[in-house]
Amino acid sequence: MNLVIYMKIKVGVSLRHVHLTKDDYYLLFDEDIKEKVPINQPGQFSAYQTVTIQANDRHLDNVRVIGPFRNYTQVEISRTEAIHLHIKPPVRMSGDLNGAEEITIIGPKGSITRKACILADRHIHITPDERKEYGLNNDVYKVKVSGEKGGIFDNVFIRESEASFFEMHIDSDDANGFDLKQNDEVEIID
Amino acid sequence: MNLVIYMKIKVGVSLRHVHLTKDDYYLLFDEDIKEKVPINQPGQFSAYQTVTIQANDRHLDNVRVIGPFRNYTQVEISRTEAIHLHIKPPVRMSGDLNGAEEITIIGPKGSITRKACILADRHIHITPDERKEYGLNNDVYKVKVSGEKGGIFDNVFIRESEASFFEMHIDSDDANGFDLKQNDEVEIID
Repeated sequence: MNLVIYMKIKVGVSLRHVHLTKDDYYLLFDEDIKEKVPINQPGQFSAYQTVTIQANDRHLDNVRVIGPFRNYTQVEISRTEAIHLHIKPPVRMSGDLNGAEEITIIGPKGSITRKACILADRHIHITPDERKEYGLNNDVYKVKVSGEKGGIFDNVFIRESEASFFEMHIDSDDANGFDLKQNDEVEIID
Repeated sequence: MNLVIYMKIKVGVSLRHVHLTKDDYYLLFDEDIKEKVPINQPGQFSAYQTVTIQANDRHLDNVRVIGPFRNYTQVEISRTEAIHLHIKPPVRMSGDLNGAEEITIIGPKGSITRKACILADRHIHITPDERKEYGLNNDVYKVKVSGEKGGIFDNVFIRESEASFFEMHIDSDDANGFDLKQNDEVEIID
């Protein structure tokens, strides 16, 4: 195979998590959201708060709330976790809840049920300036992973915004299948 | 990329399971092993019997026993499950327990602790005749997966034996990361 290697990029592994609107948050919690640790994407953080998610009488605990609040409520899980919950969420860009699976989110104060559960697509966060500098003009790339469990990810989408830290986000299935950890280096190829 | 496609092959997804020696089996069970369903590899079967596996005070239930007995005891799990158990098993060919992690296997009669836990490598089962016919002379291939979560698996090893059903075996992380199910078709490439 003739692979054109554009550049190296670090991996960010997204474990199951939930984004909440302010209204939905206060249906679940009677305390204010509190930052535990910042995540690499500027302004965003892992909160101390966690929820339980439930579908079909099956549940997953310790689902981290990611702040700050958004204008949509969204639950992001892996296919492995979806199989456990007996649901079939679609692969979607964050914020696109078209066809999202219904899921119940349970907090210490109350619970809500929303059509909000997706598998996040593989994507690269990048600022407009970095994108020009690196010449990453396509909307989608392949990404090469080395190692004994290596290979290539297709369909890694460019996600351009001013408040971005340059890294590739994948879910825990993609990470574990390819034996990738947070901050491992992979290569963007054509 | 210029990909040479050799041929299509079906996927077999290996969920967590255990192979046991006859002696180890009877340390765990006081009943004889009983076939529940045959698996695709000739002469092998999923047994009615399951075990619990445990490491570091964490455990996984419903780990299927695969028969018939072998001359080694081996536990095959995914990286996701290894993380849950707080162990780091190496990627190994079945039967190669060099560096395997210690794990406790618990049955209704008793329990055993063995250095027996691995992640199975990606591999293709094939008979010597099929291998000649298909011209798959290399020891290792890449395998291409289509679809929105598609890509390429590196390091898919040829496993040749007379009692083989032609399919590619991957673990549940590789399957779920690439959204593959049992019997999905993928392509062997160079």
